This record gives sequence, C-alpha cells and structure tokens, in this order.
Amino acid sequence: MRTVITLTTDFGYTDAYVAAMKGVILSLNPEAILVDLCHSIAPQNISQGAFVLSSAVKYFPSGTIHLIVVDPGVGTLRRAIILKSPDYFFIAPDNGVLSYVIKPSLTRSKLTSTKLRKLPAEFQAVAITNPKFWRYPVSNTFHGRDVMAPVAAYLSLGTPLEQFGEKVTSILILPFPQPQKELNGEIIGRVIHIDRFGNLITNVSRQDLPESKVAFEVAGKIVEGLSHSYAEGGELLAIIGSSGHLEFAWRDGSAADKLGIKIGDRIKIRLEWDT
Amino acid sequence: MRTVITLTTDFGYTDAYVAAMKGVILSLNPEAILVDLCHSIAPQNISQGAFVLSSAVKYFPSGTIHLIVVDPGVGTLRRAIILKSPDYFFIAPDNGVLSYVIKPSLTRSKLTSTKLRKLPAEFQAVAITNPKFWRYPVSNTFHGRDVMAPVAAYLSLGTPLEQFGEKVTSILILPFPQPQKELNGEIIGRVIHIDRFGNLITNVSRQDLPESKVAFEVAGKIVEGLSHSYAEGGELLAIIGSSGHLEFAWRDGSAADKLGIKIGDRIKIRLEWDT
Amino acid sequence: MRTVITLTTDFGYTDAYVAAMKGVILSLNPEAILVDLCHSIAPQNISQGAFVLSSAVKYFPSGTIHLIVVDPGVGTLRRAIILKSPDYFFIAPDNGVLSYVIKPSLTRSKLTSTKLRKLPAEFQAVAITNPKFWRYPVSNTFHGRDVMAPVAAYLSLGTPLEQFGEKVTSILILPFPQPQKELNGEIIGRVIHIDRFGNLITNVSRQDLPESKVAFEVAGKIVEGLSHSYAEGGELLAIIGSSGHLEFAWRDGSAADKLGIKIGDRIKIRLEWDT
Repeated sequence: MRTVITLTTDFGYTDAYVAAMKGVILSLNPEAILVDLCHSIAPQNISQGAFVLSSAVKYFPSGTIHLIVVDPGVGTLRRAIILKSPDYFFIAPDNGVLSYVIKPSLTRSKLTSTKLRKLPAEFQAVAITNPKFWRYPVSNTFHGRDVMAPVAAYLSLGTPLEQFGEKVTSILILPFPQPQKELNGEIIGRVIHIDRFGNLITNVSRQDLPESKVAFEVAGKIVEGLSHSYAEGGELLAIIGSSGHLEFAWRDGSAADKLGIKIGDRIKIRLEWDT
Repeated sequence: MRTVITLTTDFGYTDAYVAAMKGVILSLNPEAILVDLCHSIAPQNISQGAFVLSSAVKYFPSGTIHLIVVDPGVGTLRRAIILKSPDYFFIAPDNGVLSYVIKPSLTRSKLTSTKLRKLPAEFQAVAITNPKFWRYPVSNTFHGRDVMAPVAAYLSLGTPLEQFGEKVTSILILPFPQPQKELNGEIIGRVIHIDRFGNLITNVSRQDLPESKVAFEVAGKIVEGLSHSYAEGGELLAIIGSSGHLEFAWRDGSAADKLGIKIGDRIKIRLEWDT
Repeated sequence: MRTVITLTTDFGYTDAYVAAMKGVILSLNPEAILVDLCHSIAPQNISQGAFVLSSAVKYFPSGTIHLIVVDPGVGTLRRAIILKSPDYFFIAPDNGVLSYVIKPSLTRSKLTSTKLRKLPAEFQAVAITNPKFWRYPVSNTFHGRDVMAPVAAYLSLGTPLEQFGEKVTSILILPFPQPQKELNGEIIGRVIHIDRFGNLITNVSRQDLPESKVAFEVAGKIVEGLSHSYAEGGELLAIIGSSGHLEFAWRDGSAADKLGIKIGDRIKIRLEWDT
C-alpha cells in the first residue's frame, strides 16, 4: 500500500537509528513512502518536537501516517498511542508531543502545565498495547524501532485502529504559551522557535494582532509595522511568516544572533499611537 | 507519474520547511520520486546554490525536475521561472541560481556582474505567473511551498510548460569567476567551493591547465604536478576532482583548515620551468 | 525492480555527492528504493563506518543492497567488492568497512591488526573489476558515483553476482576491540561509539556480563547495576542499549560531555562483591 509515512525524531544525523526504523517499516510494507519531517529536534525536547511537527503536518496528503519519536520516557510506564484526526494518523509516545496537532480550541486554552485532556469528538485514539504488532526482541530503549515503526507499517497496510490496543479518550497536552494582554493594551508574546535563518517565530498569530497600526519591541529595539517580505523594511523587520505566526527577521542575517535572543524570550506589541 | 523531483534549498535540517514542500508535492502527485540534492546551502547564498546544483544535475535521469529554493527576494517582484533544458526542467527564482546549468559558452563569458542574458536556443523558459497552479493561501515568505512545489508537481504530471505563464527569453546570469592569465604566463584561479573533506575546489578546469608540467601555489605553499588520487602525493596535493575542477586536498585532513583558506581566495598556477 | 538500496558514506550534508550517486542509480533503475543509512561518518573513518553500518543492517528487508562509500584509498590499487551474505548484498571498498557485518565468530577473534581473512562459507564475494557496469568517464576520486553506484543499480536489476568480476575468498577485516578479562575478574571494555544523545556505547555485549550483580566504573564514577530505561537510575546509568551493547547514559544530558569521554576510552566492570 502506497501510504506516506513521515518521521520526526530527536535522533539527529550521526547514527543509524532513523535508518533502522525505515528498515523495519519497509520490511513489512515495501511500498510505504517514507518522508523525513525533521530529525533535528533537540534531544528529548518534547515541546520543540510538538511545534515542528505541527508546522508541517497539514501539507501532507490525507491518510498520511505521522510517526514521532521524541521519547525521554521510553521503557517506563508512559504509553505509546495512535491518534486519528479527520485527516491523519499520528503514532507517538503520549507525552505531549501531539499537543499542537489537536485543534486550536483545545491547545490554546489556559493550561499552565502538562495535563491529560479529553480529546475533541473528531479525534480517536488507542494505546499501543497489543504485542502482536511489535518486533521482537523489544529493546527497552528503542520502542521507536521495535513498537512504533512496525505499528506504523501495519497501520499503513490497513490494519484497523482498534486492533492495536484499547481506546483512550484523553491524552497529555502541553501548556501553550499564550500571548498576554496587559492592562495598558500591550500584548506580550514569546519566541517559540528559531529557524535556520535565525528568524524568531513567536506565539502571536495574525489574528492576535490589533487591526490598527502596531509597533513591536524586541531586545530593546522598536520595529514599526509589518513588512510584506524579508527583503523590504529596515534591518530588523516584523512579518507574518509561513506558519501564520508573527516573526522577526534580520535582513541578510540572523535575528537570533544579532539580538542575542533565545527560545522563551519575550517580545512586546503595542498600538502605534502609544509610541 | 513516476518523475524524479530533486530539491535544493538553503533550509538546512532544523526545521520542517523541506518536509512541507514534499507534502505539497506528494499531495498532488503521490508517485513523484523525491530526492534531496542539498539543503545545506548557506542562507541566501545564491552562487553557492548555483555551484552545488550544477555539480550534480547531470547524473539524474532525463526528464528530472530540479526544484531550487534559495530565494532571498521571496515576496518581492523577483520572478520565479521554469527553465527547460534538453534534458531537464528547473524551477527556481530568477536570481542567478540557474546560471551554471546553462551551457558553459554562456556562463564562462566575461560577465563581471549579474545580468539578464538571452537564453541559448536549446533552452526555453516561462515565468510562473498563472495562479491556477498555486497553493492557497500563498504565504508571502514561502513561495517554495505555495508556488514552486505545486508547479513542480503539476509539471511532473505532464502539464505543458506554456500553461504556467508567459514565455521569457532572458534570465539572470551570475558572473562566473574566470581564471585569469597573467602576462608572465601564470594563471590565477579562485577557490569556489570547499567540500565536507575540506578539499578546495577551484574555478580552474582540466582544459584550463597547460599541457606542460605545472606547479601550483596555494597559501604560500608549492605543489608540483597533479596527483592521481587523494592517497598519493605529499601532504598537500593538487588533483582533478570528480567535477572536473582542479582541487587541493590535504592527506588525511582538511586543506581548508590546514591552510586557513576561504571561498574566494586565490591560487596560482605556473609552468614548471618557471620555478 | 523495487529493491531497497541503502547508502552509507562520509560525505556529510554540505555537498551534492550523495545526490550524484542517487541520480546515477535512478538513471539505471528508476524503481530502486533509496534509503540513507548514515552520511555523517567522520571523514575516512573506516571503523566508525563499519560500526554504524552494522548497527542498522539487520532491520532491512532480505535482498537489500547496502552501498558503503568510506573510501580513503579511492583511485589507488585498493579493491572494491560485492559481498553477499545470506540476506544482503554489500558494495564497498575492501578496506575493512564490512568487518562487522561478517559473522561475529570471525570478527570477535583475536585480531590485533587489519588483515585479509577467509570468508565464512555462507558468504560469497567478487572484486568489482568488469568495467562493463561502470559509468564513464570514471573519476579517479569518486568511484562511489562512477563504479559502485552503477554496480548497485545493475545488481538491483538482477545482474548475477559473478558478472561483476572475479571471485574473492578473503577480505580485509578490522581488529575488533575485545573486552579484556583481568586476573582479578574485572572486565575492561572500551567506548566504540558515542551517539547523538551523548550515550557511550561500548564493546561489551549482554553476554559478556557476568550473571551476578555487577558494578561499573567510568571516568572515575561508580554505577551499581543495570538500569532498565534511560529514565530510571541515578544521573549516570548503565543500560543494555538497542544494539545489545552496554551503554552509559546521563539522565537528561550527554554522558560524553558530562564525563569528558571519547571514543576508545576504557570502562571497567567488576562483580558487585568486589566493591
């Protein structure tokens, strides 16, 4: 069955861990179409994995199986799950890494810590507990290869969801850092991702921005208004990036390096007439 | 349609930008065969993209579509184009990144700056202006995903070239740094690429070298004659590399590190009896 | 023919050398399924290539062709070979990089230097000497592209092994660093690989460990007993990793960085009652 299976891991490129997973999948379904989503998630960084995954999922064909192995709890009692959305399947440890592919109404709620949350009605999930679909011997340190990869392969071959284990109705959801509205009308956002270009991607979406003209403050610098491309505006510019989030970019350079900004740092948005 | 589509970008490996493009292509043509050509082009480095692209293009099957996204001008008035050569299609911004896949007679001319140049007769090109083949909404910062990837997919499905936009007869061509012949017969070349091994790849081709015995000077060191393999010759050796260019290599080490050489640095070639 | 071909090289990700090889293969067999095993082998590091290759080979489908280009001797008289095991084909320079895919009885012997060793009965091999299957012109510096890649493609199309060259019965085998048993009953092992997580993978297998309770000494620190997952145990823990080897890991960090350990460093195993 020519099903697309994407792989997202924190395995990097120095080992053959990703290749071992691909070998397991191709041994069971030689027609699977394997696509690397990203393997540069920082080791065990669940929230980075959740963000990067969510940034690309929706561009894949309906029916795609997304396999995510960012799994610091491997070998402990943490569950692995299959989550079915209207368009996709996700196979991952139940540790929050799927938070941002659940509909925004859930993830953008006021959670302040990682919590079990009831799945919206259009999602289904099972815990991966049926050992029939695993590879043996099961390594205690690499369920990606011995549990999740073969489950992805059998799922791609059409095995029904309910055969992999019992139904679950709640999964772990990470708190999503919300933009904060201050009493003076300013909005405080945070940098949630820094891309290869050094662009600062924030938790502020297009719809969070006021209709009026705005100014931004980042690392003590003021940016007036939004630019329409990376090549227009001053050295430092603000723009709605390809994920629909507010970004800061440095023309012909890395905003992260130039400003000394890290993930989690604050940015400020104010109405133009405040300046 | 089982068409090969290669991807060359400056997106690196820390994000899911490449994966988003692959998802878009596979959504339209599930049978496309996707091959990463290179994603480590330095951010917005058009000439490096042009060189790396040209180093691998000709090894692909006839009919391959090469998609190149090194696009500092995205969202501005710069054009995106489809270029058709006798063997391949290229989809890229019209910013010079296709210079070195045009026939050498054109690129090896005496250009000293980037200029619009008339295409040789065996090439055809169109500007990508027909919005029918794009993905919506079109992000202003990621035409690779929303314009060029879907165009690559439709092209791989057999959509005729002329449907994507109006014909263009000239495209931007980068100046190619030519080896210079000095009055004393010496040839001055430049380092145009440094590979993973630290080998220094120059703009000097086999046919630029005199028939007689030659000596080379690089970073103040003299190398006499050409070696036939990396494992023969002294510590520092000169060799015609796999791209047909003169290279300098350091046995069991990186010539770039040992000599402190950067891209753009000069090397000198002289006839043996001059020494 | 839909045969899986894996690629293992020291080419890294900054050039298009890997892409050139893929282009050559797809030009000859458009249906080949190409899988990157690993391209981050340190330049010309044959023993690292041998280890990483051996860590993933067995997860691939029977009939897979494994192509390995870690080839410091390219262009010299070193042979390139095809090795056939009961399950796989391997195409590589005959420089020891295939050592660890030969059965353990051979590689775990007391070799102290790289030597030609007679192949076990279940293996066959030929030297790649028939120029009929090469790509022309053959670059003296890139047999991966011009000799080994086309040979992999023809092999994937069903060309019989013996057509590629004459039979060979011995190939170069690296010494495998054996755990040493000391007079006092302690076992001295070595770190043979450090993965992306900074886990220290040793040459000690599960079956080398005594049945009794054990303690480990690494970089002056004592670890008592084996953990069952990376998330249980103290900061520094010992565990049987996914390759069946004894590993040392640091909870939520890199053991290599925390302990200042490099490949080749010693670790010590002793019976619990010795402490």
